Formats: sequence, C-alpha cells, structure tokens
Amino acid sequence: MTEPADPDPGDGGLVRLRIDLAYDGTGFAGWAIQPRQRTVQAELEGALATVLRLADVRVTCAGRTDAGVHARGQVVHADVPLAAFEGNPYALGRRIAGVLPPDIGVRGVAIAPPGFDARFSPLWRRYAYRLTEHPFGPEPLHRHDVVAYGRALDLAAMQAASRGLVGEHDFAAFCRRRTGATTVRTLLELQWSREPHDLVVATVLADAFCHSMVRSLVGACLAVGEGRRPAEWPAQVLAGRVRRADVTVAPALGLTLEEVHYPPDAEVAARALAARRRREAPA
Amino acid sequence: MTEPADPDPGDGGLVRLRIDLAYDGTGFAGWAIQPRQRTVQAELEGALATVLRLADVRVTCAGRTDAGVHARGQVVHADVPLAAFEGNPYALGRRIAGVLPPDIGVRGVAIAPPGFDARFSPLWRRYAYRLTEHPFGPEPLHRHDVVAYGRALDLAAMQAASRGLVGEHDFAAFCRRRTGATTVRTLLELQWSREPHDLVVATVLADAFCHSMVRSLVGACLAVGEGRRPAEWPAQVLAGRVRRADVTVAPALGLTLEEVHYPPDAEVAARALAARRRREAPA
Repeated sequence: MTEPADPDPGDGGLVRLRIDLAYDGTGFAGWAIQPRQRTVQAELEGALATVLRLADVRVTCAGRTDAGVHARGQVVHADVPLAAFEGNPYALGRRIAGVLPPDIGVRGVAIAPPGFDARFSPLWRRYAYRLTEHPFGPEPLHRHDVVAYGRALDLAAMQAASRGLVGEHDFAAFCRRRTGATTVRTLLELQWSREPHDLVVATVLADAFCHSMVRSLVGACLAVGEGRRPAEWPAQVLAGRVRRADVTVAPALGLTLEEVHYPPDAEVAARALAARRRREAPA
Repeated sequence: MTEPADPDPGDGGLVRLRIDLAYDGTGFAGWAIQPRQRTVQAELEGALATVLRLADVRVTCAGRTDAGVHARGQVVHADVPLAAFEGNPYALGRRIAGVLPPDIGVRGVAIAPPGFDARFSPLWRRYAYRLTEHPFGPEPLHRHDVVAYGRALDLAAMQAASRGLVGEHDFAAFCRRRTGATTVRTLLELQWSREPHDLVVATVLADAFCHSMVRSLVGACLAVGEGRRPAEWPAQVLAGRVRRADVTVAPALGLTLEEVHYPPDAEVAARALAARRRREAPA
C-alpha cells in the first residue's frame, strides 16, 4: 500500500475508519511511534496491519498522549482499502481487539462520516487528572492512574485560580513550544472536585491542547492548593506568555484522556478545515 | 514471641492493632497463607515482622478473600508487644506502607478498642461485583477488576431474583461447606445497578459470608439476567439448601471487598462474643 495523502473516504477504494480506543498508559512510551519503544500507535498500526493483511497502515489520533498517560476515550482514524475491510465494522473491531495486547482496548469501530478527521474535527477534548491526599497514597487498584500527593489541598483556592485561566488565551506559558504553530487555545472548563475514595479530580476541557498543557495547568493549580502561591499566580503566569521553570509539570500517571467530542456528521468536514487553518497559523 | 491465644489488648504487654488494608488481588493466591504461594496474609505478616523486628506476627482479617479477589476496605487485627510498637499508629502505618509491595496498601493503623476482633466484631461486610456488557470487554485500566461479560442482562429480572434471597437463611446452597459450622447468614442487601463506563455492579451486604457465597449468588442472578432461568430460580435453589452444579460461581476478578462495618467501640466486644457463638454453632 502506498501512503495516501489525506484521501477522501472511499476515494481510490479507501475507506476512513473511526476507531475508539481505551488504554492503560503504564506500559507505553506514549502514543506516538518512536524507535525501539513500545507505543500505542505502533501496537495499533501493527494490529490493523495484521488483521487487514496490509504491509502498512497509518493512524491519526485526537490526542497524542505522553508516556504513562491513559485514555478512556481516544479517537483515531485510519484509511484502509475497501477490499481489505469487508464492510462489517463490528466484526473488524472484534478482530482488532483479539490481536491487541491487554493494555489497549477497542471501544468501537465505525465508518467515519465524510470529511472526518480524528485530530482536527473535534469540538473539544476532556481530560481528567486524579490524585489523592491520603497519607498512604492511592488504593493499589488505582496505583497506575492516581497520583500519591499526600499533602492537604485548598480546593476553593484552586478553583479560584482555575477561573482565571478559562477562556481563549495564548497558553505559551503552559506549553512545550512546537516551532511555527500557534499556542492559542480555548480552555472551556477547569474544575476541581473531591470524589469518593479520597480522590481529588481535575476536569479539563478545551478545543485542543498543546504539548504538556494539562499537566502544566494542574501543576500551577497545585502550587496554589498547597499555599505556595496565591490564587492569582496561574493567571499571572499565563499573561507572561513564556514558559517558566517554576511551573511544575504534574506526573503523567494521573492524567487520562476521557472524551473527545465531535460535531454532528454533517459538520465534521467544515470543523476540520477551520481547526487546521487555526492551529497551523504561525505563533 | 510465643503465639498468644486471643490475648486481651494490653495483656502481657501486648497491644491489639487494627489495620485497614486495600489490595489488588491479581497477583495473589488469595488472603490466606499457603505453602509456596504469594498471599496477602504472608506479605502483611512479613512486613509487620520486619518493621516491628519480631520473629513472628499473626494477623486475623474480616474477610478471607479468594485468589484474584480485591479489597478496598479489608480490616485486620494483630497483637503486638507494646515494646515493639512505639505508640504512634500513624508512624507505624508509614513504615508498614514502605515495606509492603505496591499491590497492597495501608489505609489506616489504630489501636483497637477493647474486645475488638476483626473477624467477629463486624455488623456487616459489603462486597461489590463488577462486570461489563460492552462487546469489547472492560476498559484496560479496569481489566483486573471488571469481568468481560459481553451479553445483555435484564437487570429488572436480576433485581427481582435478588429480592427473594435477602433475609436470614441457611445459604448452604451457595456455600462451599466447612464441616461443623453453620451456613446461616443474614443477607441485608443484594442490589444491581448500571454505572458509568458500561458497568453493571452488584452491591452485596451481609452480617458475614460463607466461602464463595457472593460469587455463587452473583452467578445465580446472572443466569436470570441472561434469561436462562426464571427470576424465581435463585430463591428455589436457596430453599433446597444443597450445593448444586448448575449454580455457576462468577469469576473472582470481578469481586472487591469494599467495606467492613463495626459497631461503636463500646459494643465491639459483645458483638464479637455473639457472632463467634452464632457462627461456630453446628450446622
């Protein structure tokens, strides 16, 4: 198979699949393929190639998670030859699930609507960050997705700090810079709550995230929650628009990509065009 | 240390500790010590012996979980010499937590009230059983505590079946028999609910459980939920008072000991005496 350059679904006998995935990120060096590393992308592309009997399959995801980060609602697209794919997405899902390792799970397989792009069509992504103040750390069943924080947090102060971050801003201060791409994002929600079993959970929702943005926002709010910084500090950092050494990037294992939300089928193509134009604008 | 025969707390310089534990049961051959097997009891007794510098420490738990069964709220007591225990339960908890493997977690350590017995003082135990009807199985982060069931369940029928089991009964039909001990128990609650992330959860609450009772009750209700048996069937099995081959014991990994509930401190001694008398009565 020669690699298609953004084919239309169905074009040249190719069909675009939408695959919903969940994974335990503990055993992966993150999403993206890297030489000599176990990655989610490599495992999925390998499973698809096996099941579809193709030499090569490329996938594109909604959220390129870092090493140790988990997903409950990752979304991927892949363009595969119609001939290889026998037209039953459910049966294909069963076959992919049978080949994937136990730390990656298929949640659904469907033929994508016209113009669908896993990366550029979403209206928003939602992440959760989980930690515990319990002095003895997380319950063992959650040792891979809940961070042992161990210090008491002032959630009201963290909530106040979070309000100063919501909205459309240049998040350069909270991003690892990628040259030539904008760091303007719209943070739609940043909420802190206490949940059963001694959990503190941040819900973070944005149109899109730049690299390490969620974990940097969480790190800044934790400095407030511990009383090391005033509630106004994260908004001041944001306004500075430069990455700073005193913003701690919170540990990866507490982070889970929970959900990627797409517009109705008729609007995914227009949304992808608009998002691609916006995100690829120079900084 | 010579092994004490049910010492009074403080008697002979011994103090009774209450230790609250959580564990991921995946890597254990269950709670109880067995030769050449990795068990929770052996790990905990070893950790206590190390931290307290004793040759031998024995612990007694509230619920002897089987291989693969998890705990969020296991409770244990141990009698340790006052001299070995320096009087700060929190510091002791930190030290035990530092020695235990990552799949066992300390949730609390306290000096037990007079007459406290982890096994005989409880008013009730609560277990949860978790499974998913999702065709592709559980999310990978929950592959160790959620069973891949994959068939659609009629929860209303299961709920109806469960109502016929609640109350004080001889649960011999749902127990692996231990010679010379009663199988009369009071089932206080058996509820089925759908929860987020495609979960079906049974909440099972009783004064105490005999061996394999929760998983047998769950198995009988699942036969109803699948439509293989009428809603009246589990109550008919119960009334028969004999263990039957057609009651499936549901897989261990779906089961978690969630909570053990004790009476107020002033009543734990009387409760332990009454429960011991009742449970050791001949069948």
